[in-house]
Amino acid sequence: MSTATGTKWVYRFADGNAEMRDLLGGKGAGLSEMTNAQLPVPPGFTITTEACNAYNAAGKQFPAELWDQTLAAMQEVEAATSKRFGDPQNPLLVSVRSGAKFSMPGMMDTVLNLGLNTETLQGLAQLTGNERFANDAYRRFIQMFGKIVMGVPGEHFEELLDEVKQEVGATQDTDLTADQLVDVVERFKALVREEAGQDFPDDPYEQLRQAIEAVFASWDNPRAYAYRDFHKLPHDLGTAVNIVTMVFGNMGGDSGTGVAFTRDPATGEQRLFGEFLTNAQGEDVVAGIRTPRPIAQLARDMPGVYREFEAIADRLEQHYRDTQDLEFTIERGKLYMLQTRSAKRTAAAAVKIAVDMAQEGLISREEAVQRVEPDQIYQLLLPHFDEEAKAEASSAGRWLTTGLNASPGAATGKAVFDADRAAELGGAGEAVILVRPETNPDDVHGMLVAQGILTARGGATSHAAVVARGLGKSCVAGAESILVDTERRQFTVNGQVVHEDDAISIDGTTGEVFTGVIPTVETHLEDEQELQVLLTWADEYRQLGVWANADYPRDAQRALRFGAEGIGLCRTEHMFFEEDRLPIVQQMILAAGEATALENELAQRQAALAVAEGRRARVAARRQVAEQEAKVAASAEVTGYREALQRLQEVQTEDFRGVLGTMAGRPVIIRLLDPPLHEFLPNYEELRVQLLELTHRGVSPADRDETEYLLQAVGQMTEANPMLGMRGCRLGLLYPAIYAMQVRAILGAASDLAQNGVDIRPEIMIPLVGHVNELKMVRDQLEEVAAEIEQETGQDLHYKFGTMIELPRAALTADEIAEHAEFFSYGTNDLTQTTFGYSRDDAESKFLMPYMEQGVLPENPFQTLDRNGVGKLIKMGVELGRSTRPELEIGICGEHGGDPASVTYCHDIGLDYVSCSPFRVPVARLAAAQAALAHSGPRDV
Amino acid sequence: MSTATGTKWVYRFADGNAEMRDLLGGKGAGLSEMTNAQLPVPPGFTITTEACNAYNAAGKQFPAELWDQTLAAMQEVEAATSKRFGDPQNPLLVSVRSGAKFSMPGMMDTVLNLGLNTETLQGLAQLTGNERFANDAYRRFIQMFGKIVMGVPGEHFEELLDEVKQEVGATQDTDLTADQLVDVVERFKALVREEAGQDFPDDPYEQLRQAIEAVFASWDNPRAYAYRDFHKLPHDLGTAVNIVTMVFGNMGGDSGTGVAFTRDPATGEQRLFGEFLTNAQGEDVVAGIRTPRPIAQLARDMPGVYREFEAIADRLEQHYRDTQDLEFTIERGKLYMLQTRSAKRTAAAAVKIAVDMAQEGLISREEAVQRVEPDQIYQLLLPHFDEEAKAEASSAGRWLTTGLNASPGAATGKAVFDADRAAELGGAGEAVILVRPETNPDDVHGMLVAQGILTARGGATSHAAVVARGLGKSCVAGAESILVDTERRQFTVNGQVVHEDDAISIDGTTGEVFTGVIPTVETHLEDEQELQVLLTWADEYRQLGVWANADYPRDAQRALRFGAEGIGLCRTEHMFFEEDRLPIVQQMILAAGEATALENELAQRQAALAVAEGRRARVAARRQVAEQEAKVAASAEVTGYREALQRLQEVQTEDFRGVLGTMAGRPVIIRLLDPPLHEFLPNYEELRVQLLELTHRGVSPADRDETEYLLQAVGQMTEANPMLGMRGCRLGLLYPAIYAMQVRAILGAASDLAQNGVDIRPEIMIPLVGHVNELKMVRDQLEEVAAEIEQETGQDLHYKFGTMIELPRAALTADEIAEHAEFFSYGTNDLTQTTFGYSRDDAESKFLMPYMEQGVLPENPFQTLDRNGVGKLIKMGVELGRSTRPELEIGICGEHGGDPASVTYCHDIGLDYVSCSPFRVPVARLAAAQAALAHSGPRDV
Repeated sequence: MSTATGTKWVYRFADGNAEMRDLLGGKGAGLSEMTNAQLPVPPGFTITTEACNAYNAAGKQFPAELWDQTLAAMQEVEAATSKRFGDPQNPLLVSVRSGAKFSMPGMMDTVLNLGLNTETLQGLAQLTGNERFANDAYRRFIQMFGKIVMGVPGEHFEELLDEVKQEVGATQDTDLTADQLVDVVERFKALVREEAGQDFPDDPYEQLRQAIEAVFASWDNPRAYAYRDFHKLPHDLGTAVNIVTMVFGNMGGDSGTGVAFTRDPATGEQRLFGEFLTNAQGEDVVAGIRTPRPIAQLARDMPGVYREFEAIADRLEQHYRDTQDLEFTIERGKLYMLQTRSAKRTAAAAVKIAVDMAQEGLISREEAVQRVEPDQIYQLLLPHFDEEAKAEASSAGRWLTTGLNASPGAATGKAVFDADRAAELGGAGEAVILVRPETNPDDVHGMLVAQGILTARGGATSHAAVVARGLGKSCVAGAESILVDTERRQFTVNGQVVHEDDAISIDGTTGEVFTGVIPTVETHLEDEQELQVLLTWADEYRQLGVWANADYPRDAQRALRFGAEGIGLCRTEHMFFEEDRLPIVQQMILAAGEATALENELAQRQAALAVAEGRRARVAARRQVAEQEAKVAASAEVTGYREALQRLQEVQTEDFRGVLGTMAGRPVIIRLLDPPLHEFLPNYEELRVQLLELTHRGVSPADRDETEYLLQAVGQMTEANPMLGMRGCRLGLLYPAIYAMQVRAILGAASDLAQNGVDIRPEIMIPLVGHVNELKMVRDQLEEVAAEIEQETGQDLHYKFGTMIELPRAALTADEIAEHAEFFSYGTNDLTQTTFGYSRDDAESKFLMPYMEQGVLPENPFQTLDRNGVGKLIKMGVELGRSTRPELEIGICGEHGGDPASVTYCHDIGLDYVSCSPFRVPVARLAAAQAALAHSGPRDV
Repeated sequence: MSTATGTKWVYRFADGNAEMRDLLGGKGAGLSEMTNAQLPVPPGFTITTEACNAYNAAGKQFPAELWDQTLAAMQEVEAATSKRFGDPQNPLLVSVRSGAKFSMPGMMDTVLNLGLNTETLQGLAQLTGNERFANDAYRRFIQMFGKIVMGVPGEHFEELLDEVKQEVGATQDTDLTADQLVDVVERFKALVREEAGQDFPDDPYEQLRQAIEAVFASWDNPRAYAYRDFHKLPHDLGTAVNIVTMVFGNMGGDSGTGVAFTRDPATGEQRLFGEFLTNAQGEDVVAGIRTPRPIAQLARDMPGVYREFEAIADRLEQHYRDTQDLEFTIERGKLYMLQTRSAKRTAAAAVKIAVDMAQEGLISREEAVQRVEPDQIYQLLLPHFDEEAKAEASSAGRWLTTGLNASPGAATGKAVFDADRAAELGGAGEAVILVRPETNPDDVHGMLVAQGILTARGGATSHAAVVARGLGKSCVAGAESILVDTERRQFTVNGQVVHEDDAISIDGTTGEVFTGVIPTVETHLEDEQELQVLLTWADEYRQLGVWANADYPRDAQRALRFGAEGIGLCRTEHMFFEEDRLPIVQQMILAAGEATALENELAQRQAALAVAEGRRARVAARRQVAEQEAKVAASAEVTGYREALQRLQEVQTEDFRGVLGTMAGRPVIIRLLDPPLHEFLPNYEELRVQLLELTHRGVSPADRDETEYLLQAVGQMTEANPMLGMRGCRLGLLYPAIYAMQVRAILGAASDLAQNGVDIRPEIMIPLVGHVNELKMVRDQLEEVAAEIEQETGQDLHYKFGTMIELPRAALTADEIAEHAEFFSYGTNDLTQTTFGYSRDDAESKFLMPYMEQGVLPENPFQTLDRNGVGKLIKMGVELGRSTRPELEIGICGEHGGDPASVTYCHDIGLDYVSCSPFRVPVARLAAAQAALAHSGPRDV
């Protein structure tokens, strides 16, 4: 069809194939592929995405030759169908369908019955022998074309139709007679004239031209832009336009239309799954006026057609080697295939289909591993509503509505109607669901603490949806049937009222909303056979180790069940926060400063004694030491400090025995105390207010003493920016007894277990190192402690010392640091914090969410590793670290360890393992395998 | 003297020269050089530093052949002097002096008269015909050797001597007769036996051997270690040992000893400067019992000797091409030179000498520029006490004591005796001097706010000295004559009592302490002719530009006077803090959130209207816009916000007019608003307490309203880590009207000035950019504002947009950022903060000072740029930035811009300029020149 001088803008279906998605879009490529496979596809052709781009680039002008090529293609379709476009006797009708490379629901979809006008209408009526059918087809065409091409709001057509029905006393569209439909057509045309300011076009070629232009223009509309931004699709792909001969499923009992999947898209079960309607067009299936019937029943109604369809479905699945989503129409007993595409499926189905197909030999195991999105596995393992309880709730009338499933997960809590109230209750530990007409940046502080978010307005890219996904919260958005009254603090849905503090349950995976509490259940990986198989395959391909972050034995057990090969981060401070320990921890903190100062002075005097020259000098130095020894012995702080350390050592030894024992044979990285000490003390402000109130209540100064003492102690420890303050190894260096106690607990536990024959592999992690000297000095001190324990127990304990790389300077000087570290673990939360200069505590509620909405940042860097900045630093650190210690063990233990894109990056730069929360372990296993399979060459190490 | 097989451990003075400092130490090299220049040096030799290292490495064993070589050298000395070591008739006596490559006051110094014992004593008495002299020499030898070599505390000798004087009724040492001195000698020997547990050695060779060993061992003593650590000298240099024939200045009226400088070390004046004593040994000059006389008087006493000395001094200065510090002794009319070395000098002298010598043609201008430490210039320009007022204070008896000049600068304030009180008064804006027996880390919060620090104990490396220098505070340390009584809050010095809150003045440059206030004066660069000349020369060599940080016109004027070539940082927020503006700023802040939300909503609705399709949709969209317009018009917040912005724009325009006008013809970088907004509001805690008190006082809720409103507003803005929070361009993006206002003010001022023919060069700096999109979006918004102003005024204004590189991520992605920035300015304070993860607000008082004391960090990274970490990041940013924009203008505006070591680094990595506080501009000019001269090759750019 192309000329020697011009571009080929138009492809007959016979000219294309499945590989040409870029040029023909997904739908066009599918129709071409089916045509070439000799499947029954109505004749037609595709206008390329390049034509769309040329049209938009030229300021809405058809490129040269496009129209001529379109006309030529129409002639071929006329020849193939023996009909003519615009012929009053034997009219050719076509559908015009947009079709980009990727499916884009936000765009213009389909115009059917194009080519009808008052003249061809007669031909259609004669050919079908059904005047009502012809008039109805014309009515539908005007309605679709008027809305989609001419921009007349769709609801105005519906209102007009309702008016007519009321006038003639009809209840259903089908009650309208042919004559009444003629009236509808006239009123529709008048509506178009009024709203669009021009007549509805009669000339079929004019109709065709306008429809093509509308499809082209739809590529540039704001919704399409927003959709592409959200899904990170490029804006320069363009859309193709498919022109397909109309076939009619509404030509009587031997006609019909339907959709089907080659396997069940909900469960993955291997059976044809779908539904159809006889004597109906596609839009009838969608409109939901008549209830479609299961596809299996087609076997009874039209056994020949069913067998043919079944064979075609099977061929297509074999051909595409994936589950297909099919559209078909039967016109007077003849089957036509209108679409085939890869089927969307639930997480469970994705897993089952991938495993089944590999076991059937249809795809390889490598392909099976690549067929499932790692995040889908997370969805699968997320707590979800107990199905039985949910069914009960439904049958008890507790289902309220179904909105958009904007962010997966099940959540139950008290309904609250503003962010402040959410923050208040949520901050106090109550489960709340924030219900808003829609959300905006002022609501983020409430969203942060809510279990879930429910909005009445907004789609998949609304503020609520974006923020909820960003925060990993459940969200049902755009539940349009609910009416939120924030003044009266309630919402109504179909007359039912939900007040503030009433319990509601939302399912962000399905979009359902219920009143009352529905219990959630946890998925057990053990019960998910296909998933187990898939992960076992993934383990064969992945090169990255997958470890878990776990602070307690119970977490470690879960991590093991999920397949963790080690503990990458055991945070000792979480153990400090437990209720029975906090008083001991506070005692330790309050005494640390004074006790350490006294002990340091003693050490200095002992050192001075050691170098004193001359007898008299030695006598004087001895006296100085004795004086200080007396002071130390008399100090309540020293006694309290030592006591607290002793008691903490005992409980921590127990904790570590549990974790190390659970992980026998596997490495366990234990991080020494990291957070600022004042986090363990009461809040300064609260103390101040408390003291003021005591004073006003006339409490005597003596009885205010303790509060005053606390206030002063807390005040001295308060820091302007605690994240950048006195924490991590800074504590370890200034209060060395704390780390020494922790190492005694770790190695004491290790020694006990080793004596019982348990294979233990503790790795001691020194946090927040920024300068090699910090690591060197802390490690030197702790190696002494370790040597003492080895001497006491007579055991040769196997342990490692390493550090967390969580400050830019650590990564920049990783070569120096690696000389004193046996392992690195990237703390990507803190590293992101300092590399960006974002306070993790505040950023999300203050500016990060607006940043993502406005497109300042492509994604939340606390969720997905920022490759250009933080990632570059990590890569540098890996290279520098291995330059001085090639056998350095390197992993990552920030939250990014469970994010698939971040896992891919960790693979690419040659880390040894990722460590993530137990629930994320299966996600990381799959993501690591996919990364390895995507880069079959050597890693960039 | 070396053998074919052995190492040459010993060098006769004739074998060495000035170049051999590494091997012979400074003193040995000087004696060799003088010997070879035919100057009258007593015969002698030097044992090498290598011998010292070999001795210490071998566990305190002389290396093979050392002793034999020493004996051989002694024989040569005997031959040269015609005396014999240990000869009872004609004894050779020697001095043994340590001498490392660098002068080290913390080490063993000199033993005189070595070779004396009961027998040689007689010979000395006969040779000199003076028994008393001989006995006194022996007494002195035992005292020195006993203390330095045998480790007997010096004060014990003094006590014994006092005892004897009391017994015989003598007041001066010189009152003691020869016989009485014999008694002293006996008692000294008994003391040695008791204290050291062994007899004082009689054998001269044993004396020599022990003295050499003592010098060797002194290299390893703790004081020497600490000294080298502090001065960053290596520990592996070793010390040489010089053995020099004794000459006696105490042999009568034709003998004498003295020290002299070839130029005045205080002023640099070109004249022989020094002092001498007749009939005295060197230690008498030091002991201060007799007052030495000015060197000029030697011309009258011994004209021949004086002329010879003058000629030698001149020759040595010419020879070494630098001012020399000379030691000499006259023995019975014959002049001996004992030492020559480069003279220590004051800052003023250093400058004058360098300029004079270059003008005399003795050294080149390049050398002159390299002869002055840049930090000395800072000292010179620091405010110092008015000399006249200081002299008056002295004569009025207000001088109290002189301690160690531990950290330069003059300070006056109330004496306070604990850090808490210092923090309290200092925090309230009062000038205080913190007085402590010594300081420790618990005192740092007080030191931070004090004007100066005075301690009774501790040397140049004590906590007080290190911290004070680290903080740039004046400090007099180790003022041992004062007695600090912290309980009674007072100190006494020579009976005089200074109470808490009494005013005192300390001069950290000289170590002097006074009561009462002494006014300080500022040095005017204009009056410092030599400095002006030196800086002009420096400007010829330097390649780095030197700009200044200045927020007000008066700062800009000072910067110009100091030679700044531009303003590298004009902080607009300082203008916000002024008393009359703060209420307007607060009004702006309190309204910003609500006003911006309302205006954003309006903008969104206007955008929706622009894309609305269909007539009815357009009507609806228009109604939505109108509704929101009404809301905006009715909003008190919007009105208040706009009003405040308008008023601020007016005052800021005035400010910028001043700064830009002052700097006509030079670039001025103006930084848009940077700090977190809540810094401008009252403190949250204070408000809470205030509200609580209002409530308790029974103030009605209505009257508490404003406080409650403020409390809520401030509470919403409070952040856990404000440094990493809502500031810089984050504000600019979320509240765009603020930056727009500032750009209007800047370009408005620029336009006014340009209309009056002033050459203005504003550069607008967008702070805290971490992602290129932040810069791009803010700049796009502001370019629009600029375009508006250009259109309004019809002028083509010349301005640049650039950014501060102050976050690690900005440096890591500098290639992307440079595509949208015309200049980079490294904000090294913040960059250091995030690269290290140190909060500038807390680090110094919490852990940075202990870190420096314990040697965790070699220096304060907020003062001297950390090359390995922060510096690496800067270098990376420079390379990346220039890779996409080769003409990128790059500078640094953190406090490091005035630190010489940091300036050197900035030169090395190819920055265009450094910007620092006006006082530091001359420092930076000199440092930049030195950096350029040090690296005469091409820069590493």
